[in-house]
Amino acid sequence: MISKRQIKIITSLHQKKYRKSTGLFVAEGKKVIQEFLNSKFELDSLFSVDANLFANNSKVTLISEAELKKISFLKTPNKALALFKIAENAVVNAEGLIVALDDVRDPGNLGTIIRLCDWFGVTQLVCSEATVDCYNPKVIQATMGSLTRVNVVYANLENYLSETKLPVFGAFMDGKNVYKTNLPKDGILVMGNEANGVSEKISTLITEKIAIPRFGEIQQTESLNVAMATGILLNEFKRSEF
Amino acid sequence: MISKRQIKIITSLHQKKYRKSTGLFVAEGKKVIQEFLNSKFELDSLFSVDANLFANNSKVTLISEAELKKISFLKTPNKALALFKIAENAVVNAEGLIVALDDVRDPGNLGTIIRLCDWFGVTQLVCSEATVDCYNPKVIQATMGSLTRVNVVYANLENYLSETKLPVFGAFMDGKNVYKTNLPKDGILVMGNEANGVSEKISTLITEKIAIPRFGEIQQTESLNVAMATGILLNEFKRSEF
Repeated sequence: MISKRQIKIITSLHQKKYRKSTGLFVAEGKKVIQEFLNSKFELDSLFSVDANLFANNSKVTLISEAELKKISFLKTPNKALALFKIAENAVVNAEGLIVALDDVRDPGNLGTIIRLCDWFGVTQLVCSEATVDCYNPKVIQATMGSLTRVNVVYANLENYLSETKLPVFGAFMDGKNVYKTNLPKDGILVMGNEANGVSEKISTLITEKIAIPRFGEIQQTESLNVAMATGILLNEFKRSEF
Repeated sequence: MISKRQIKIITSLHQKKYRKSTGLFVAEGKKVIQEFLNSKFELDSLFSVDANLFANNSKVTLISEAELKKISFLKTPNKALALFKIAENAVVNAEGLIVALDDVRDPGNLGTIIRLCDWFGVTQLVCSEATVDCYNPKVIQATMGSLTRVNVVYANLENYLSETKLPVFGAFMDGKNVYKTNLPKDGILVMGNEANGVSEKISTLITEKIAIPRFGEIQQTESLNVAMATGILLNEFKRSEF
Protein backbone atom coordinates (compact mmCIF):
# COMPACT_ATOMS: atom_id res chain seq x y z
CA MET A 1 0.00 0.00 0.00
CA ILE A 2 1.26 3.43 -0.94
CA SER A 3 -0.22 6.75 0.17
CA LYS A 4 -1.44 9.51 -2.13
CA ARG A 5 1.21 11.77 -0.67
CA GLN A 6 3.95 9.27 -1.50
CA ILE A 7 2.66 8.93 -5.07
CA LYS A 8 2.76 12.70 -5.42
CA ILE A 9 6.32 12.94 -4.13
CA ILE A 10 7.60 10.11 -6.33
CA THR A 11 6.00 11.37 -9.54
CA SER A 12 7.40 14.86 -8.84
CA LEU A 13 10.94 13.41 -8.96
CA HIS A 14 11.10 13.48 -12.74
CA GLN A 15 11.70 17.21 -12.22
CA LYS A 16 15.15 18.32 -11.13
CA LYS A 17 13.82 20.96 -8.73
CA TYR A 18 11.94 18.34 -6.71
CA ARG A 19 14.93 15.99 -6.70
CA LYS A 20 16.92 18.92 -5.34
CA SER A 21 14.38 19.89 -2.66
CA THR A 22 13.83 16.30 -1.46
CA GLY A 23 17.39 15.03 -2.05
CA LEU A 24 15.93 11.86 -3.61
CA PHE A 25 16.04 10.08 -6.95
CA VAL A 26 14.24 7.10 -8.49
CA ALA A 27 15.75 3.79 -9.61
CA GLU A 28 13.63 1.06 -11.20
CA GLY A 29 13.90 -2.67 -11.81
CA LYS A 30 15.53 -5.42 -9.78
CA LYS A 31 18.95 -5.19 -11.40
CA VAL A 32 19.41 -1.42 -11.22
CA ILE A 33 18.05 -1.24 -7.64
CA GLN A 34 20.34 -4.09 -6.57
CA GLU A 35 23.39 -2.21 -7.92
CA PHE A 36 22.46 0.89 -5.94
CA LEU A 37 21.79 -1.23 -2.81
CA ASN A 38 25.32 -2.66 -3.14
CA SER A 39 26.84 0.83 -3.38
CA LYS A 40 27.51 3.88 -1.26
CA PHE A 41 24.02 5.23 -2.08
CA GLU A 42 21.60 5.22 0.84
CA LEU A 43 18.16 3.69 0.36
CA ASP A 44 15.17 5.84 1.32
CA SER A 45 12.27 3.57 0.37
CA LEU A 46 11.58 0.54 -1.78
CA PHE A 47 8.34 -0.59 -3.44
CA SER A 48 7.83 -4.00 -4.99
CA VAL A 49 4.95 -5.94 -6.53
CA ASP A 50 6.68 -9.23 -5.68
CA ALA A 51 7.21 -10.27 -2.03
CA ASN A 52 10.14 -12.46 -3.07
CA LEU A 53 12.10 -9.54 -4.49
CA PHE A 54 14.31 -7.90 -1.83
CA ALA A 55 12.66 -10.21 0.73
CA ASN A 56 15.37 -9.52 3.31
CA ASN A 57 15.14 -5.74 3.02
CA SER A 58 13.32 -4.16 5.95
CA LYS A 59 12.34 -1.07 3.94
CA VAL A 60 10.37 -2.88 1.25
CA THR A 61 6.66 -2.02 0.85
CA LEU A 62 4.49 -4.43 -1.11
CA ILE A 63 2.34 -2.62 -3.70
CA SER A 64 -0.05 -3.64 -6.49
CA GLU A 65 0.74 -3.56 -10.22
CA ALA A 66 -1.74 -0.67 -10.50
CA GLU A 67 0.11 1.29 -7.82
CA LEU A 68 3.47 0.61 -9.48
CA LYS A 69 2.04 1.91 -12.75
CA LYS A 70 1.14 5.18 -11.01
CA ILE A 71 4.67 5.83 -9.75
CA SER A 72 6.80 4.31 -12.53
CA PHE A 73 8.54 6.44 -15.18
CA LEU A 74 8.89 3.41 -17.47
CA LYS A 75 6.52 2.51 -20.29
CA THR A 76 6.59 -1.05 -19.00
CA PRO A 77 7.01 -0.84 -15.20
CA ASN A 78 9.58 -3.32 -13.93
CA LYS A 79 8.36 -4.97 -10.68
CA ALA A 80 10.13 -2.64 -8.26
CA LEU A 81 10.89 1.04 -7.73
CA ALA A 82 13.21 2.53 -5.13
CA LEU A 83 14.07 5.99 -3.86
CA PHE A 84 17.70 6.63 -3.02
CA LYS A 85 19.38 9.67 -1.50
CA ILE A 86 21.37 11.88 -3.85
CA ALA A 87 25.09 11.72 -3.03
CA GLU A 88 26.90 14.86 -1.99
CA ASN A 89 29.33 16.30 -4.54
CA ALA A 90 32.59 14.41 -4.08
CA VAL A 91 35.95 16.18 -4.11
CA VAL A 92 37.71 15.82 -7.48
CA ASN A 93 41.22 14.39 -7.11
CA ALA A 94 43.74 15.71 -9.59
CA GLU A 95 44.90 12.30 -10.76
CA GLY A 96 44.14 9.79 -13.48
CA LEU A 97 42.04 10.65 -16.49
CA ILE A 98 39.08 12.93 -15.69
CA VAL A 99 36.27 13.52 -18.17
CA ALA A 100 34.61 16.96 -18.14
CA LEU A 101 31.34 17.77 -19.93
CA ASP A 102 30.60 21.27 -21.20
CA ASP A 103 26.79 21.40 -21.35
CA VAL A 104 25.88 17.93 -22.61
CA ARG A 105 22.07 18.11 -22.68
CA ASP A 106 20.78 14.71 -23.79
CA PRO A 107 20.09 12.20 -20.97
CA GLY A 108 20.89 9.29 -23.29
CA ASN A 109 24.29 10.76 -24.11
CA LEU A 110 25.12 11.39 -20.44
CA GLY A 111 24.02 7.84 -19.57
CA THR A 112 26.23 6.39 -22.31
CA ILE A 113 29.18 8.55 -21.23
CA ILE A 114 28.84 7.40 -17.60
CA ARG A 115 28.83 3.77 -18.81
CA LEU A 116 31.91 4.46 -20.95
CA CYS A 117 33.74 6.01 -17.98
CA ASP A 118 32.93 2.88 -15.98
CA TRP A 119 34.12 0.61 -18.84
CA PHE A 120 37.42 2.47 -19.24
CA GLY A 121 38.08 2.84 -15.50
CA VAL A 122 37.49 6.61 -15.37
CA THR A 123 36.06 7.28 -11.91
CA GLN A 124 35.74 11.08 -12.05
CA LEU A 125 33.30 12.93 -14.30
CA VAL A 126 33.03 16.71 -13.88
CA CYS A 127 29.87 18.25 -15.39
CA SER A 128 29.18 21.93 -16.08
CA GLU A 129 26.13 23.19 -14.24
CA ALA A 130 24.09 23.26 -17.49
CA THR A 131 24.82 19.59 -18.20
CA VAL A 132 21.76 17.35 -17.82
CA ASP A 133 21.27 16.08 -14.25
CA CYS A 134 22.72 12.58 -13.71
CA TYR A 135 19.80 11.77 -11.37
CA ASN A 136 17.33 12.30 -14.22
CA PRO A 137 15.34 9.00 -14.40
CA LYS A 138 16.38 8.43 -18.04
CA VAL A 139 20.05 8.73 -17.08
CA ILE A 140 19.62 6.40 -14.10
CA GLN A 141 18.00 3.70 -16.25
CA ALA A 142 20.52 4.16 -19.09
CA THR A 143 23.57 3.86 -16.82
CA MET A 144 22.49 0.45 -15.45
CA GLY A 145 24.36 0.94 -12.19
CA SER A 146 27.53 2.50 -13.63
CA LEU A 147 26.64 5.61 -11.63
CA THR A 148 27.53 3.66 -8.49
CA ARG A 149 31.12 3.36 -9.74
CA VAL A 150 31.68 6.79 -11.34
CA ASN A 151 31.71 9.95 -9.21
CA VAL A 152 29.75 12.60 -11.06
CA VAL A 153 30.45 16.12 -9.79
CA TYR A 154 28.60 19.27 -10.92
CA ALA A 155 30.78 22.37 -10.86
CA ASN A 156 31.47 25.69 -12.47
CA LEU A 157 33.58 24.24 -15.27
CA GLU A 158 35.33 27.52 -16.04
CA ASN A 159 36.53 27.85 -12.43
CA TYR A 160 37.51 24.20 -12.24
CA LEU A 161 39.59 24.30 -15.43
CA SER A 162 41.16 27.66 -14.49
CA GLU A 163 42.46 26.21 -11.26
CA THR A 164 43.64 22.75 -12.31
CA LYS A 165 47.31 21.97 -12.87
CA LEU A 166 46.47 18.98 -15.10
CA PRO A 167 46.78 19.25 -18.89
CA VAL A 168 43.35 19.96 -20.41
CA PHE A 169 42.47 18.19 -23.69
CA GLY A 170 39.36 19.12 -25.62
CA ALA A 171 37.54 17.49 -28.56
CA PHE A 172 37.34 19.85 -31.54
CA MET A 173 36.50 19.17 -35.20
CA ASP A 174 39.71 21.02 -36.19
CA GLY A 175 41.92 19.68 -33.39
CA LYS A 176 45.20 17.82 -33.76
CA ASN A 177 45.04 14.20 -34.98
CA VAL A 178 44.54 12.26 -31.73
CA TYR A 179 46.51 9.29 -33.12
CA LYS A 180 49.58 11.51 -33.27
CA THR A 181 49.07 13.23 -29.92
CA ASN A 182 50.92 12.22 -26.78
CA LEU A 183 48.17 11.37 -24.28
CA PRO A 184 49.28 11.34 -20.62
CA LYS A 185 47.91 9.15 -17.83
CA ASP A 186 46.84 12.16 -15.76
CA GLY A 187 44.74 14.77 -17.52
CA ILE A 188 41.30 16.15 -18.27
CA LEU A 189 39.30 15.42 -21.44
CA VAL A 190 36.62 18.05 -22.17
CA MET A 191 33.68 17.08 -24.40
CA GLY A 192 31.29 19.75 -25.69
CA ASN A 193 27.59 20.31 -26.21
CA GLU A 194 25.73 18.25 -28.84
CA ALA A 195 24.99 21.20 -31.14
CA ASN A 196 27.75 23.69 -30.39
CA GLY A 197 30.74 21.69 -29.22
CA VAL A 198 33.03 23.17 -26.58
CA SER A 199 31.95 26.73 -25.70
CA GLU A 200 34.14 29.75 -26.40
CA LYS A 201 34.70 30.45 -22.70
CA ILE A 202 35.95 26.92 -22.09
CA SER A 203 37.98 26.81 -25.34
CA THR A 204 40.42 29.36 -23.96
CA LEU A 205 41.21 26.99 -21.07
CA ILE A 206 42.12 24.01 -23.30
CA THR A 207 45.82 23.10 -23.39
CA GLU A 208 45.53 20.81 -26.43
CA LYS A 209 42.73 20.57 -29.00
CA ILE A 210 42.37 17.05 -30.36
CA ALA A 211 40.25 15.44 -33.09
CA ILE A 212 39.36 12.00 -34.38
CA PRO A 213 40.40 12.30 -38.04
CA ARG A 214 37.87 11.56 -40.76
CA PHE A 215 38.95 8.95 -43.29
CA GLY A 216 38.39 8.95 -47.04
CA GLU A 217 38.47 11.74 -49.54
CA ILE A 218 34.87 12.82 -49.42
CA GLN A 219 34.56 14.93 -46.29
CA GLN A 220 30.79 15.18 -46.05
CA THR A 221 30.21 12.86 -43.10
CA GLU A 222 28.34 14.37 -40.21
CA SER A 223 30.38 14.79 -37.03
CA LEU A 224 30.35 11.86 -34.64
CA ASN A 225 27.79 11.97 -31.83
CA VAL A 226 29.33 13.23 -28.55
CA ALA A 227 28.94 9.86 -26.80
CA MET A 228 30.59 8.02 -29.71
CA ALA A 229 33.44 10.56 -29.81
CA THR A 230 33.90 10.15 -26.03
CA GLY A 231 34.11 6.36 -26.44
CA ILE A 232 36.74 6.57 -29.19
CA LEU A 233 38.81 9.19 -27.32
CA LEU A 234 38.68 7.25 -24.03
CA ASN A 235 39.89 4.23 -26.01
CA GLU A 236 42.82 6.33 -27.28
CA PHE A 237 43.74 7.58 -23.78
CA LYS A 238 43.46 4.16 -22.18
CA ARG A 239 44.63 1.63 -24.81
CA SER A 240 48.31 1.93 -23.86
CA GLU A 241 47.53 1.05 -20.23
CA PHE A 242 46.43 -2.44 -21.23
CA MET B 1 -1.32 18.53 -54.83
CA ILE B 2 -0.94 14.88 -54.02
CA SER B 3 -3.43 12.11 -54.83
CA LYS B 4 -5.01 9.75 -52.32
CA ARG B 5 -3.33 6.87 -54.11
CA GLN B 6 0.10 8.50 -53.73
CA ILE B 7 -0.53 9.11 -50.02
CA LYS B 8 -1.45 5.45 -49.60
CA ILE B 9 1.70 4.28 -51.38
CA ILE B 10 4.01 6.59 -49.45
CA THR B 11 2.61 5.76 -46.01
CA SER B 12 2.87 2.04 -46.83
CA LEU B 13 6.64 2.44 -47.25
CA HIS B 14 7.32 2.28 -43.52
CA GLN B 15 6.78 -1.47 -44.04
CA LYS B 16 9.60 -3.47 -45.59
CA LYS B 17 7.25 -5.60 -47.73
CA TYR B 18 5.92 -2.51 -49.51
CA ARG B 19 9.42 -1.10 -49.99
CA LYS B 20 10.30 -4.44 -51.55
CA SER B 21 7.24 -4.60 -53.83
CA THR B 22 7.55 -0.98 -55.01
CA GLY B 23 11.36 -0.76 -54.95
CA LEU B 24 11.06 2.67 -53.29
CA PHE B 25 12.15 4.27 -50.02
CA VAL B 26 11.46 7.61 -48.32
CA ALA B 27 13.99 10.34 -47.49
CA GLU B 28 12.94 13.53 -45.67
CA GLY B 29 14.34 17.01 -45.16
CA LYS B 30 16.34 19.25 -47.46
CA LYS B 31 19.75 18.06 -46.36
CA VAL B 32 19.12 14.31 -46.52
CA ILE B 33 17.28 14.59 -49.85
CA GLN B 34 20.09 16.70 -51.31
CA GLU B 35 22.66 14.06 -50.37
CA PHE B 36 20.63 11.36 -52.14
CA LEU B 37 20.15 13.65 -55.19
CA ASN B 38 23.95 14.03 -55.38
CA SER B 39 24.47 10.25 -55.28
CA LYS B 40 23.95 7.17 -57.42
CA PHE B 41 20.38 6.83 -56.08
CA GLU B 42 17.65 7.56 -58.64
CA LEU B 43 14.87 9.97 -57.70
CA ASP B 44 11.31 8.74 -58.18
CA SER B 45 9.32 11.71 -56.88
CA LEU B 46 9.80 14.77 -54.71
CA PHE B 47 7.27 16.72 -52.63
CA SER B 48 7.95 20.11 -51.10
CA VAL B 49 5.97 22.74 -49.19
CA ASP B 50 8.40 25.42 -50.37
CA ALA B 51 8.68 26.34 -54.08
CA ASN B 52 12.22 27.63 -53.51
CA LEU B 53 13.48 24.26 -52.32
CA PHE B 54 14.74 22.13 -55.22
CA ALA B 55 13.45 24.85 -57.57
CA ASN B 56 15.46 23.45 -60.50
CA ASN B 57 14.24 19.90 -60.08
CA SER B 58 11.65 18.93 -62.69
CA LYS B 59 10.16 16.20 -60.51
CA VAL B 60 9.16 18.45 -57.61
CA THR B 61 5.46 18.62 -56.67
CA LEU B 62 4.33 21.49 -54.47
CA ILE B 63 2.17 20.32 -51.56
CA SER B 64 0.57 21.90 -48.49
CA GLU B 65 1.83 21.53 -44.90
CA ALA B 66 -1.28 19.44 -44.19
CA GLU B 67 -0.45 17.10 -47.07
CA LEU B 68 3.16 16.78 -45.93
CA LYS B 69 1.92 15.87 -42.46
CA LYS B 70 -0.08 13.01 -43.98
CA ILE B 71 2.90 11.44 -45.73
CA SER B 72 5.75 12.25 -43.31
CA PHE B 73 7.17 9.68 -40.90
CA LEU B 74 8.67 12.44 -38.74
CA LYS B 75 7.06 13.91 -35.63
CA THR B 76 7.93 17.33 -36.99
CA PRO B 77 7.73 17.11 -40.80
CA ASN B 78 10.69 18.79 -42.48
CA LYS B 79 9.52 20.78 -45.56
CA ALA B 80 10.22 18.10 -48.16
CA LEU B 81 9.86 14.36 -48.72
CA ALA B 82 11.27 12.33 -51.59
CA LEU B 83 10.96 8.81 -52.90
CA PHE B 84 14.12 7.22 -54.24
CA LYS B 85 14.65 3.85 -55.92
CA ILE B 86 16.27 1.14 -53.81
CA ALA B 87 19.74 0.29 -55.15
CA GLU B 88 20.44 -3.22 -56.37
CA ASN B 89 22.72 -5.31 -54.18
CA ALA B 90 26.29 -4.39 -55.14
CA VAL B 91 28.99 -7.00 -55.54
CA VAL B 92 31.24 -7.18 -52.47
CA ASN B 93 34.91 -6.77 -53.36
CA ALA B 94 37.31 -8.76 -51.22
CA GLU B 95 39.52 -5.82 -50.31
CA GLY B 96 39.86 -3.26 -47.58
CA LEU B 97 38.06 -3.57 -44.29
CA ILE B 98 34.52 -4.93 -44.61
CA VAL B 99 32.02 -4.77 -41.74
CA ALA B 100 29.50 -7.63 -41.46
CA LEU B 101 26.43 -7.56 -39.22
CA ASP B 102 24.95 -10.75 -37.79
CA ASP B 103 21.30 -9.84 -37.09
CA VAL B 104 21.57 -6.27 -35.78
CA ARG B 105 17.91 -5.41 -35.17
CA ASP B 106 17.75 -1.82 -33.96
CA PRO B 107 17.39 0.85 -36.71
CA GLY B 108 19.27 3.39 -34.58
CA ASN B 109 22.22 1.02 -34.21
CA LEU B 110 22.32 0.27 -37.95
CA GLY B 111 22.13 4.00 -38.73
CA THR B 112 25.01 4.74 -36.36
CA ILE B 113 27.08 1.87 -37.80
CA ILE B 114 26.56 3.14 -41.38
CA ARG B 115 27.71 6.63 -40.26
CA LEU B 116 30.76 5.08 -38.55
CA CYS B 117 31.65 3.14 -41.71
CA ASP B 118 31.44 6.42 -43.64
CA TRP B 119 33.61 8.21 -41.04
CA PHE B 120 36.30 5.51 -41.06
CA GLY B 121 36.30 5.05 -44.83
CA VAL B 122 34.69 1.60 -44.82
CA THR B 123 32.65 1.40 -48.03
CA GLN B 124 31.31 -2.15 -47.75
CA LEU B 125 28.81 -3.33 -45.15
CA VAL B 126 27.45 -6.87 -45.45
CA CYS B 127 24.25 -7.54 -43.48
CA SER B 128 22.68 -10.89 -42.64
CA GLU B 129 19.16 -11.24 -43.99
CA ALA B 130 17.68 -10.81 -40.50
CA THR B 131 19.48 -7.49 -39.97
CA VAL B 132 17.11 -4.50 -39.96
CA ASP B 133 16.50 -3.05 -43.44
CA CYS B 134 18.75 -0.09 -44.25
CA TYR B 135 15.86 1.54 -46.15
CA ASN B 136 13.77 1.66 -42.97
CA PRO B 137 12.81 5.37 -42.58
CA LYS B 138 14.47 5.55 -39.14
CA VAL B 139 17.75 4.29 -40.60
CA ILE B 140 17.56 6.70 -43.55
CA GLN B 141 17.05 9.70 -41.24
CA ALA B 142 19.73 8.50 -38.78
CA THR B 143 22.39 8.01 -41.47
CA MET B 144 22.11 11.60 -42.74
CA GLY B 145 23.31 10.68 -46.22
CA SER B 146 26.08 8.29 -45.20
CA LEU B 147 24.11 5.59 -46.98
CA THR B 148 25.04 7.28 -50.27
CA ARG B 149 28.73 6.56 -49.55
CA VAL B 150 28.54 3.09 -47.99
CA ASN B 151 27.39 0.06 -50.03
CA VAL B 152 25.06 -1.97 -47.87
CA VAL B 153 24.59 -5.52 -49.15
CA TYR B 154 22.13 -8.07 -47.71
CA ALA B 155 23.34 -11.64 -48.02
CA ASN B 156 23.31 -15.07 -46.46
CA LEU B 157 26.12 -14.29 -44.02
CA GLU B 158 26.99 -17.95 -43.44
CA ASN B 159 27.54 -18.53 -47.16
CA TYR B 160 29.44 -15.28 -47.58
CA LEU B 161 31.84 -16.00 -44.71
CA SER B 162 32.28 -19.65 -45.79
CA GLU B 163 33.46 -18.55 -49.20
CA THR B 164 35.67 -15.56 -48.39
CA LYS B 165 39.47 -15.83 -48.38
CA LEU B 166 39.79 -12.76 -46.11
CA PRO B 167 40.55 -13.19 -42.40
CA VAL B 168 37.31 -12.95 -40.40
CA PHE B 169 37.43 -11.07 -37.07
CA GLY B 170 34.49 -11.16 -34.70
CA ALA B 171 33.63 -9.14 -31.57
CA PHE B 172 33.20 -11.43 -28.53
CA MET B 173 33.11 -10.62 -24.82
CA ASP B 174 35.78 -13.30 -24.25
CA GLY B 175 37.86 -12.55 -27.34
CA LYS B 176 41.55 -11.67 -27.48
CA ASN B 177 42.56 -8.17 -26.33
CA VAL B 178 42.16 -6.10 -29.50
CA TYR B 179 45.03 -3.80 -28.46
CA LYS B 180 47.38 -6.80 -28.71
CA THR B 181 45.95 -8.23 -31.92
CA ASN B 182 47.53 -7.70 -35.32
CA LEU B 183 44.80 -6.08 -37.41
CA PRO B 184 45.35 -6.29 -41.19
CA LYS B 185 44.24 -3.77 -43.81
CA ASP B 186 42.11 -6.33 -45.64
CA GLY B 187 39.65 -8.29 -43.55
CA ILE B 188 36.11 -8.70 -42.30
CA LEU B 189 34.86 -7.51 -38.90
CA VAL B 190 31.69 -9.32 -37.74
CA MET B 191 29.48 -7.62 -35.13
CA GLY B 192 26.65 -9.56 -33.50
CA ASN B 193 23.06 -9.12 -32.43
CA GLU B 194 22.22 -6.68 -29.59
CA ALA B 195 21.01 -9.36 -27.17
CA ASN B 196 22.86 -12.50 -28.25
CA GLY B 197 26.10 -11.34 -29.87
CA VAL B 198 27.49 -13.34 -32.80
CA SER B 199 25.36 -16.45 -33.42
CA GLU B 200 26.73 -19.99 -32.98
CA LYS B 201 26.54 -20.73 -36.69
CA ILE B 202 28.60 -17.65 -37.56
CA SER B 203 31.03 -18.17 -34.63
CA THR B 204 32.46 -21.27 -36.30
CA LEU B 205 33.45 -19.13 -39.31
CA ILE B 206 35.44 -16.57 -37.29
CA THR B 207 39.22 -16.71 -37.73
CA GLU B 208 40.01 -14.48 -34.73
CA LYS B 209 37.76 -13.54 -31.80
CA ILE B 210 38.58 -10.08 -30.46
CA ALA B 211 37.38 -8.01 -27.49
CA ILE B 212 37.67 -4.48 -26.16
CA PRO B 213 39.08 -5.11 -22.67
CA ARG B 214 37.27 -3.76 -19.64
CA PHE B 215 39.34 -1.58 -17.35
CA GLY B 216 39.29 -1.52 -13.56
CA GLU B 217 38.96 -4.31 -11.04
CA ILE B 218 35.23 -4.36 -10.62
CA GLN B 219 33.91 -6.25 -13.63
CA GLN B 220 30.23 -5.43 -13.32
CA THR B 221 29.92 -2.98 -16.19
CA GLU B 222 27.33 -3.85 -18.79
CA SER B 223 28.72 -4.75 -22.19
CA LEU B 224 29.14 -1.89 -24.64
CA ASN B 225 26.30 -1.26 -27.06
CA VAL B 226 26.96 -2.82 -30.50
CA ALA B 227 27.27 0.57 -32.24
CA MET B 228 29.76 1.84 -29.62
CA ALA B 229 31.79 -1.39 -29.88
CA THR B 230 31.80 -1.04 -33.69
CA GLY B 231 33.10 2.54 -33.39
CA ILE B 232 35.92 1.56 -31.04
CA LEU B 233 36.90 -1.48 -33.13
CA LEU B 234 36.86 0.48 -36.40
CA ASN B 235 39.11 3.02 -34.67
CA GLU B 236 41.50 0.18 -33.80
CA PHE B 237 41.54 -1.22 -37.35
CA LYS B 238 41.99 2.19 -38.95
CA ARG B 239 44.16 4.24 -36.57
CA SER B 240 47.46 2.96 -38.02
CA GLU B 241 46.44 4.10 -41.52
CA PHE B 242 46.48 7.73 -40.45
